[in-house]
Amino acid sequence: MAHIRLPEGIPGILGPMTFSPETAKPLNALAEVLLRGPNSLSPADREMIATYVSSQNDCYFCQHAHGAVAAYRLNGNEKLVNDVKLNFEGAAISGKLKSLLAIAGKTQKGGKQVTAGDVARARQEGATDKEIHDTVLIAAAFCMFNRYVDGLATWAPTDREMYRENGKRLAELGYVASTDNLLAPPNAPSMDHGK
Amino acid sequence: MAHIRLPEGIPGILGPMTFSPETAKPLNALAEVLLRGPNSLSPADREMIATYVSSQNDCYFCQHAHGAVAAYRLNGNEKLVNDVKLNFEGAAISGKLKSLLAIAGKTQKGGKQVTAGDVARARQEGATDKEIHDTVLIAAAFCMFNRYVDGLATWAPTDREMYRENGKRLAELGYVASTDNLLAPPNAPSMDHGK
Repeated sequence: MAHIRLPEGIPGILGPMTFSPETAKPLNALAEVLLRGPNSLSPADREMIATYVSSQNDCYFCQHAHGAVAAYRLNGNEKLVNDVKLNFEGAAISGKLKSLLAIAGKTQKGGKQVTAGDVARARQEGATDKEIHDTVLIAAAFCMFNRYVDGLATWAPTDREMYRENGKRLAELGYVASTDNLLAPPNAPSMDHGK
Repeated sequence: MAHIRLPEGIPGILGPMTFSPETAKPLNALAEVLLRGPNSLSPADREMIATYVSSQNDCYFCQHAHGAVAAYRLNGNEKLVNDVKLNFEGAAISGKLKSLLAIAGKTQKGGKQVTAGDVARARQEGATDKEIHDTVLIAAAFCMFNRYVDGLATWAPTDREMYRENGKRLAELGYVASTDNLLAPPNAPSMDHGK
């Protein structure tokens, strides 16, 4: 049971977002620009960073919600998403993405953990200043989203098919669309739990 | 030196915000509603929560920037801000704020650290669902802001007077005003370093 009275049957972050639409709006605007805005990093790579950080924070809802978006964008390659969570250095991804995941992993532990060596490695792999900036901010933002979801003890469904359907919807419609639903009366959350 | 090329002489979070105005906008909108929006928790209490979390994350810039806003709102009582950072349970603050700082401190360590007992204590002290929600989200958000500031190794001035002046300005003008400055050409950051 959640720590505060949230609307029934709304999974993960959508519960507190429905409870507090005034904070949901900037939170979704941030997710939208970070994960879906114009960028030399693909949306799949950015969702992978979000998924990896969420798994390091042991946030069930976020790692599966964003892992599903990443997998959808990779033609359903859920194995690759799992490989990255378990051991990204050994996964079938680019050297550049590995170097960015290393920076994200350090950021998750604490901002001061990121070293000049981590950044030099990313540059050698071809990462730009903007890509390094965005990696740090995505990792930092998911340290927020994960704590928001788990700090209120929100409900996380375990039905993987629901995450798949929602991943497709988030990939196609984006994060701000879910805010619009939340803010519209009557409440119509963008993610139901497949009853 | 910062990990990426940031504009010279711009302190703390304002460097990366100037570098990336498209993400600065939702970040400042979030800070504005969390710390200054209509709320039964005073702005001073909310800035105190932000300051405490930033000190637990050892983020020099954020703990002094927000500590200065809190002190300004408390008629310059910097001692109280320091007392809260060192040992909030023994500080001259309300039982309710102590219980919320306890929840914030757990959130800083990880969302799952917040227990039903922590929340029950806050309720006994009179905290509402919204106050508990906002405390978790403020703490979570500063786990993001702190990592953003330190993960990019931004420059933190050590001149306390500069933080005092900036604290007054942030208290009076708010966080969105600083975004407006950053987005306006030519760049005119809201916080200079007192030369």
